[in-house]
Amino acid sequence: MTLRYPVLAAGAALLGLVMTTETYGDEGMWLFNNPPRAQLKERYGFDPTAEWLDHVRMSSVRFNSGGSGSFVSADGLVMTNHHVGADDLSKLSDEKHNYLQDGFHAKTRDQEIKCKALELNVLLSIKVVTDEVTAAVKPDMKPAEAFKARQAKIAAIETAATDEKNNIRADVVTLYAGGQYHLYTFKRYTDIRLVFAPEKGVAFFGGDPDNFEYPRYDLDMCFFRVYEDDKPIKPQHYLAWSPAGSKEGELVFVSGHPGRTNRQNTSAELNYLRDTGYPYLLQRLNRLEVLLNAWSERTERNRQRAEEELFGIQNSRKARIGGLAGLLDPKLMGRKEAEEKRLKDYVAALDTKLGELPAWHKDAKTAFDVVARAEKIRAELIKEVTVLENAAGFNSHSFSIARTLVRAAEELPKPSGERLREFADARLKSLKIQLFSDEPIYEDLEAVKLADGLTFLATTLGPENELVLKVLAGKSPRERAYELISGTKVRDVEFRKKLFEGGKAAVDAANDPLIEAARLVDPASRAVRKRFETEVEEPKRQAHSALAQARYAMDGDKVYPDATFTLRLAFGTVKGYTESGQQVPAYTAFEGLYKRSAEQKNKGPFELPKRWEERKGKLALSTPFNFVCTADIIGGNSGSPVINRKGEVVGLIFDGNIESLVLDFIYDEQTARAVSVDSRAIVESLRKVYDATDLADELTGGKK
Amino acid sequence: MTLRYPVLAAGAALLGLVMTTETYGDEGMWLFNNPPRAQLKERYGFDPTAEWLDHVRMSSVRFNSGGSGSFVSADGLVMTNHHVGADDLSKLSDEKHNYLQDGFHAKTRDQEIKCKALELNVLLSIKVVTDEVTAAVKPDMKPAEAFKARQAKIAAIETAATDEKNNIRADVVTLYAGGQYHLYTFKRYTDIRLVFAPEKGVAFFGGDPDNFEYPRYDLDMCFFRVYEDDKPIKPQHYLAWSPAGSKEGELVFVSGHPGRTNRQNTSAELNYLRDTGYPYLLQRLNRLEVLLNAWSERTERNRQRAEEELFGIQNSRKARIGGLAGLLDPKLMGRKEAEEKRLKDYVAALDTKLGELPAWHKDAKTAFDVVARAEKIRAELIKEVTVLENAAGFNSHSFSIARTLVRAAEELPKPSGERLREFADARLKSLKIQLFSDEPIYEDLEAVKLADGLTFLATTLGPENELVLKVLAGKSPRERAYELISGTKVRDVEFRKKLFEGGKAAVDAANDPLIEAARLVDPASRAVRKRFETEVEEPKRQAHSALAQARYAMDGDKVYPDATFTLRLAFGTVKGYTESGQQVPAYTAFEGLYKRSAEQKNKGPFELPKRWEERKGKLALSTPFNFVCTADIIGGNSGSPVINRKGEVVGLIFDGNIESLVLDFIYDEQTARAVSVDSRAIVESLRKVYDATDLADELTGGKK
Repeated sequence: MTLRYPVLAAGAALLGLVMTTETYGDEGMWLFNNPPRAQLKERYGFDPTAEWLDHVRMSSVRFNSGGSGSFVSADGLVMTNHHVGADDLSKLSDEKHNYLQDGFHAKTRDQEIKCKALELNVLLSIKVVTDEVTAAVKPDMKPAEAFKARQAKIAAIETAATDEKNNIRADVVTLYAGGQYHLYTFKRYTDIRLVFAPEKGVAFFGGDPDNFEYPRYDLDMCFFRVYEDDKPIKPQHYLAWSPAGSKEGELVFVSGHPGRTNRQNTSAELNYLRDTGYPYLLQRLNRLEVLLNAWSERTERNRQRAEEELFGIQNSRKARIGGLAGLLDPKLMGRKEAEEKRLKDYVAALDTKLGELPAWHKDAKTAFDVVARAEKIRAELIKEVTVLENAAGFNSHSFSIARTLVRAAEELPKPSGERLREFADARLKSLKIQLFSDEPIYEDLEAVKLADGLTFLATTLGPENELVLKVLAGKSPRERAYELISGTKVRDVEFRKKLFEGGKAAVDAANDPLIEAARLVDPASRAVRKRFETEVEEPKRQAHSALAQARYAMDGDKVYPDATFTLRLAFGTVKGYTESGQQVPAYTAFEGLYKRSAEQKNKGPFELPKRWEERKGKLALSTPFNFVCTADIIGGNSGSPVINRKGEVVGLIFDGNIESLVLDFIYDEQTARAVSVDSRAIVESLRKVYDATDLADELTGGKK
Repeated sequence: MTLRYPVLAAGAALLGLVMTTETYGDEGMWLFNNPPRAQLKERYGFDPTAEWLDHVRMSSVRFNSGGSGSFVSADGLVMTNHHVGADDLSKLSDEKHNYLQDGFHAKTRDQEIKCKALELNVLLSIKVVTDEVTAAVKPDMKPAEAFKARQAKIAAIETAATDEKNNIRADVVTLYAGGQYHLYTFKRYTDIRLVFAPEKGVAFFGGDPDNFEYPRYDLDMCFFRVYEDDKPIKPQHYLAWSPAGSKEGELVFVSGHPGRTNRQNTSAELNYLRDTGYPYLLQRLNRLEVLLNAWSERTERNRQRAEEELFGIQNSRKARIGGLAGLLDPKLMGRKEAEEKRLKDYVAALDTKLGELPAWHKDAKTAFDVVARAEKIRAELIKEVTVLENAAGFNSHSFSIARTLVRAAEELPKPSGERLREFADARLKSLKIQLFSDEPIYEDLEAVKLADGLTFLATTLGPENELVLKVLAGKSPRERAYELISGTKVRDVEFRKKLFEGGKAAVDAANDPLIEAARLVDPASRAVRKRFETEVEEPKRQAHSALAQARYAMDGDKVYPDATFTLRLAFGTVKGYTESGQQVPAYTAFEGLYKRSAEQKNKGPFELPKRWEERKGKLALSTPFNFVCTADIIGGNSGSPVINRKGEVVGLIFDGNIESLVLDFIYDEQTARAVSVDSRAIVESLRKVYDATDLADELTGGKK
């Protein structure tokens, strides 16, 4: 449940920031076009070939809903986590079928069900476009101009590389905080069908209580199949299944999409997160957790409706508490400060050297101060950004739709490069898939969330704030929320299509109370977004670009960029660890699952699915179930395959332990661990618990 | 679960503030020495005699743990709510018996179990001491001096009236925000034994989800017996049981201890609560709810250990959300503003009148500004008051003990009137009962709470704050919390006694890490407490005193003071209400309990105790179970008897509906309702479900 890339962010999405100075042990989330050859050779005597790298890359799949996966058969079978598939399992469920809870098994191809708004991407190629992008920015430009010029160039590059007809998506990816720009072209797949999911009771056994804990006992897996033209695709590359699985001490790789790390943050940035960003976000997560939990407990139906969102919030909460614990650890922060001092000293020492100074030198000297100033503004803006642009003050799916409609009407007539980023041509198709999805939106849950959102808005900006008075229109937040949610038509997909296609005239004429509210708020929301982009993001981008170059000059190319939800290669060893003097073993087994369940009286998140009780006698109880390794992962790596030197699947990443929560800021090899489902548990359970012989055979090539 | 007086307060405990201007409908929490004769006569044609009032007062019991109760038999039987008794049920439980969850039934007197730290008070007499107290303050005194002089006088009056030998406790009660001071003398009982409690599953059926909701189905009752000299007491007064119960439209009374209302708050105070106090408190409640909930879910044992504290937090959270909703309701606040304007106009108009102006006139004219200034300071202090003096930054029972020991060593050598209030002679016995209680303190829960508290401290004051650095001593909050909790000896009652009795020398020599931490923090904590008392409480007390007198001059004596956890008489009608166009009936019945349970699949808080399933056939299912009335109640009224004109018990207050949550600020007769257990349900369940014939006979005098 853990390693999905969290959607809810403090303030606004941070950019992936800058390269690291030097790596440590099994550290690194490496680019496929700059793999850690030296480290692998030195530590493991392994030298991956270009073919090996291409094979792994092309077998890897990005779930645009926020996770990772891989092709694991010649017939387009994709493996990921149950919690990555959870949104889709939920959306495909109805009054009669709860696939999320009860699992799903298509015994034949024609029983596979098409998902409603799922998009998978496969990374076809990487091209460095740094020079092109940076050339668009002239030295005399002000930050806002520079930002605009760069966005326009990026949009142009993306548009040129996009091939809608053949479903080729193109994204210019910002790496090293703007030190490099790479053009990633993806094959986009949108006909994704559900093949198999176990019951949630075993996929997320232990629930939130065991989340981020180890030893662990989760069958957190889910299988989809990719179709084109109504037929399963034949992927160019897919991963073979290891017949033997892994063993302790073995070198393994993880290919996936870590969402975001903050390893190159300066002290000012870490202090911001520690003192403002994380505490503020945690307040919000606590608030939402309590709200949804209380509502869920009123009726079983409520629980089902809010379940996925609630788990996502609990997961983020636990992750942020772990991150904050790291930020408050003087030993850890001491290491960061020492690193920062090394860089500062390096930059300062350049002045005393002879010869011409590099172009970035001037900016690098002021960079720490520029970042500190930007963080100060960020702290000032956090509340407004959160309630307005991040729409926490209007917390509801309905409001997001209403705003997207209002903004689409304003943005789409502009040239692609001048639009708000999410409306650029290259992103439009994905945006429409989301906007026109017919996934259920529950009126009762929406009203509860919006009432809380409006309360948050009123107490954040003050109930006498002019905008708040206009939004509430003389009503209490609760009354107003019920009025807006019951009055709006945005839950009707046809209505959305009409307004989207009808443009500004249609939106203006809609006479929909929620659309009116979204329109009312938009100028203030855009204003704070603009301030955030120009006064926080842009100066930081420039400062980090200079620092990145300084680091590059200092440490050479033994570096990887911070995570950006793009494909990365990590490596590590299957290995236990020591916690408070206790040795934690690398592997668990099925027998541990039954033991933990019995200890917890088989209750709540520890209740085993009936099938698991019934089939206990058939299972080889000593089969390895979950295992840990030292690979460097983070949220977004959920569903990543764990592979051996031969490129064969030995596991499926689904979590990190509590100690791994510091990986956001700093790599740790002592106790931080990635947690995986063992490939042997996958096959054993498919055969013995689920009678899914065909699927097991498809994975293993018929081997038992 | 609702109407217990909440212990956790925003900032620091507010004083009960000022009298109301005029009453509305069944409004009022009346003093027994100033009952609402006019209203009762006019609305109901009822005129209570002095005997009636004395009988009701002397039959009423205050639970010093935060609730109300009443004598209901000649043998000292006391009736209250299950949730008022919950702390004691929990403390009396052990590895083998979970009385809180499974209930308790002493079939004979010698099976009744003595509670560990429970104190009951019965109000023997009320004496007006306003002149004495106010005479202690001279006109030329500065606020701090005035406060000290008043405290000294109050302590002296209390000491003089206290009779430790005969267990007579004396409290000077501040009413009308200092407009009046009354000396309350109580009989104090400390040998309280548990007689009967139903299972929590039926006492708190529906749990937090149904809390504050109606229709409702809770058997929220608990019976204790008061002993002296190892024998049940024969109380001078006790309430008889009504043979017929209540009926719709009937006049009923509630005698109990409403904890706190804020009805006379000025706009500045309500704005403070709306914009700062409530949002801040809710953040903290959300945080604690999430913390304890997550910890509870790890193991069954954790759940049992944290259960009561968690429910208390959820209850406060729901209450505050309701209160905040009221504060954000423009209609409600409009009514408050109109009232405030009336008073302002009245005061201003005095200037234009002939003759000598009253002494309070000058202060009343500036009072609104004085309060506004004090609220501004209050908002500035809230964070420090919360983390330091309210000890949220050290959240643990262990720290409270450590601090009490440190402070006792400093305070007790001083004259009673100069001590911190809680160490005054008159309160010392109660303080010692708490301090030396051997109720279990769980090391694991303490460490979890303290780790969170220290994190809260560090993020509130900043991790580089000098005090924080000292407290954390170079460790992360988590490490430091484990170190302090595992290292302290304060969980040992003998150790506490040794230090308390040994005074400063013993405390100084204790060499206990948590005591050292408490000592380290104490100067800062005392400093912010002092600022709060002198810059917030004292100016407000003086301003409200002037406003109270102005109101008195304006509206005469048709007034009652804000709630102060002292005994009050409320009245009202048994009556349903209309909610979103739906008629909500006044009564529910047993049959509704079974229906709601079935709808919720008999799960979680809707799971019926086995006994209730088994005995369903024996019960008269149409027996009234819960009912609502318009009486004016608030937290602290939990366990209050509902009585008829004859002074007979017809019900047992245990909750208010969601609409009643505005009663903190303003009375509402339209939809706000007090929720009670029907007396007929009490007897029917004792006889048919619990075979508690003796107890039922004791209540009804043998009648069936």
